[in-house]
Amino acid sequence: MKEVLEEVLKEVIPSEELRRKAEKAAEELERRLKEKLKDYPDLEFRFLGSFARDTWLPESLEIDAFILFPENYTEEELERIGLEIGKSVLDEFELRYAAHPYVHGKVLGVEADVVPCYKLRSAEKIKSAVDRTPFHHEWLKDRIKGKENDVRLLKRFLKASNLYGAEYKVRGFSGYLCELLIVFYGSFENLVREAAKWRRDLVIDVARREVYRKKGLKNIFVVDPVDEKRNVAANLSVDNLAKFVEKCRLFIEKPSKDFFYPEKEEIKDEKLEKELENRFIYEISFEKPPIVEDNLYPQLERACRKISEFLENNDFTVVKSGHFVKGSTCMIYIETAFDKLGKIKKHFGPPFEVYEHAMRFIKKEREYKHFFEEGKYVTYVRRKFTTVVEAIEDCIRNHWKSLGADVGEKIRSGVVKRVLTPSPETKEFIWDFLKLKA
Amino acid sequence: MKEVLEEVLKEVIPSEELRRKAEKAAEELERRLKEKLKDYPDLEFRFLGSFARDTWLPESLEIDAFILFPENYTEEELERIGLEIGKSVLDEFELRYAAHPYVHGKVLGVEADVVPCYKLRSAEKIKSAVDRTPFHHEWLKDRIKGKENDVRLLKRFLKASNLYGAEYKVRGFSGYLCELLIVFYGSFENLVREAAKWRRDLVIDVARREVYRKKGLKNIFVVDPVDEKRNVAANLSVDNLAKFVEKCRLFIEKPSKDFFYPEKEEIKDEKLEKELENRFIYEISFEKPPIVEDNLYPQLERACRKISEFLENNDFTVVKSGHFVKGSTCMIYIETAFDKLGKIKKHFGPPFEVYEHAMRFIKKEREYKHFFEEGKYVTYVRRKFTTVVEAIEDCIRNHWKSLGADVGEKIRSGVVKRVLTPSPETKEFIWDFLKLKA
Repeated sequence: MKEVLEEVLKEVIPSEELRRKAEKAAEELERRLKEKLKDYPDLEFRFLGSFARDTWLPESLEIDAFILFPENYTEEELERIGLEIGKSVLDEFELRYAAHPYVHGKVLGVEADVVPCYKLRSAEKIKSAVDRTPFHHEWLKDRIKGKENDVRLLKRFLKASNLYGAEYKVRGFSGYLCELLIVFYGSFENLVREAAKWRRDLVIDVARREVYRKKGLKNIFVVDPVDEKRNVAANLSVDNLAKFVEKCRLFIEKPSKDFFYPEKEEIKDEKLEKELENRFIYEISFEKPPIVEDNLYPQLERACRKISEFLENNDFTVVKSGHFVKGSTCMIYIETAFDKLGKIKKHFGPPFEVYEHAMRFIKKEREYKHFFEEGKYVTYVRRKFTTVVEAIEDCIRNHWKSLGADVGEKIRSGVVKRVLTPSPETKEFIWDFLKLKA
Repeated sequence: MKEVLEEVLKEVIPSEELRRKAEKAAEELERRLKEKLKDYPDLEFRFLGSFARDTWLPESLEIDAFILFPENYTEEELERIGLEIGKSVLDEFELRYAAHPYVHGKVLGVEADVVPCYKLRSAEKIKSAVDRTPFHHEWLKDRIKGKENDVRLLKRFLKASNLYGAEYKVRGFSGYLCELLIVFYGSFENLVREAAKWRRDLVIDVARREVYRKKGLKNIFVVDPVDEKRNVAANLSVDNLAKFVEKCRLFIEKPSKDFFYPEKEEIKDEKLEKELENRFIYEISFEKPPIVEDNLYPQLERACRKISEFLENNDFTVVKSGHFVKGSTCMIYIETAFDKLGKIKKHFGPPFEVYEHAMRFIKKEREYKHFFEEGKYVTYVRRKFTTVVEAIEDCIRNHWKSLGADVGEKIRSGVVKRVLTPSPETKEFIWDFLKLKA
């Protein structure tokens, strides 16, 4: 394992050249901010995040500068002045939205964020998530010293399996969580060895240096050292936790660079099409609504869940659902066990003993004769939908309101079809969706 | 109701002419038996059954003569001598089998059975079911007097709905049960009014003149007055009980002759074929095994049940199954909710926490990648069958041994097909199987 990690370290540690470039950009940004903040004597700024703690990966250098506002500023002022400062100190910029709007841009060719937040006395009093960042930095900055490259290994390890990032698109490990885990376990190697034995009902209390099981806990709880009520791993899905634990086990067993830099999988077109012919995969494609990813992805998940429920309620068996965004198009995929149902379904009535109810049951105008099963009245009723496409069409045209506020609005004019020959853009996703092996 | 019953009585009471014919045949049979039994001084004969009690329907006149053997005869002797007597007193004959073999034939053009049985002191000591018949007759013969035509009404009422007969083909009401019910309730009208409120957990104790509910009872229990452990309605299915109760309710509400002489239902060919196109009905046809009906029908029921279970175990949803015998061919029908499944099904592994089991799961050679659902390992495996026909073929070719001893032997070389255009012989059955209305 040591050898493999040595090899990987060569690639995850930024080169001297890149470091110099980053340093120069940071110095320039500091200079500009100092100059700008002369107009706002009660504001201050700090470099926070992975750049400030030297835990960044070469491929994702980004300087985070936070502008700290005293509490007497209103949120409106904080936003307005924060953005104004950001715009004035960055070479090129765009507005982005997390808890608050912030400014993303470049300084001397290096990516940078300027983020306004409140300066508070305690992390438990925060008004929005970004206000917590200074506390996170304070807690980590000395404790992470000497372990920066272990953080880099971990981030690379996670990225290789799409497990890095707490955003809804990923539901993986945030950068902050990575650093806490390295502090807690001391090294990447030790973390990997311990995580191989993780369970979903674990509490990892970083500040108290304790790890213990908690009965009934549905997903791992990493106690934030600056706010003990907060779970730093709140957005990590159980399935991604499982993927990580499995990856740790496999890495321990047979360490290799592939765990950090996986080979791209080959797709066999013929196999893919043959598979699609013998399985029932449906695609709903629609225009992406104009919302941020952290809003879009939960809505896509909701739409998947609701459409699957609708199908199940109409007796179609759903195998799996998934979603995929490419450019300005969203796609939802549903696999079902079969594509077509017979036109009738059973409709049960009362047991024969219930005289009055039975008489009401048999006197109703019905398309089919009734009969008995174990003494219970049964008849057939015509199904509303006999094909999956009919059912999905009805769901998105008539029940779009339940499919996510923004996604619903767009999906209602979406296009439904069975997938038989996937487009080049969707091929890779569908290959993975089908769980095919090359 | 009175008027309707008057009308029906005209048809269910045998004409004077028929009565005379029956009387003459009975006298002739009596003469022949007396003559014959001179060779067997310790045997005696009796007329039992509906003819002896004058509760027979014109369309099913049959004289039952029982030969009573003392207990010191062996079963072998009883059978041999019983058959010998039967053959010698009947004009034409064939052997039939119930509990024992007996002789069926004709006397002066009237159907007659000659049945050997033991003469016992108590009905609780019987060796086979026929030995009970003399006791039944003794119990009924005086009690049924004056109520013979009520029995006839009941039998006709039941026949009209295929509810008459305790044999496995019907699973309805035996003639003996009909007479007991008339004795217990006093009249056909009263029976119908009371049966409209029947429940499956009812005990009707005819001898004690009691009717009461018994918790947990799965089907109505009519206590045999000559053997209180025996349920006279043992072979009445719950669904036929339900049909009868419903029929009573409808008759009370709107009495009519149709309840006794139903009109034959019209079959609409076009509607039938259209329906078959939109539902999934499969037929297995095979040669009828050379066994009596009371052996055949339970085996057909078993085959239906086992094939349905096999389909359900392979993820096909069974709507209904049924069987039908025509000439020397048996047919089993299965309706399923769909005809074709995708090629894969989910195969679940352990939750990710179970380290060793998880490692074993992922190391198995598999056709598909694995993934997680709620922290549990999942992969896909290829289905053994993707169509209903494939699954049924496998079931009857490879699992025929579980489909009934004799039926299994024949069904293994049966023919399976989806029904789209039924043959003239099966049309009526399929029309009813689909529960179509004209």
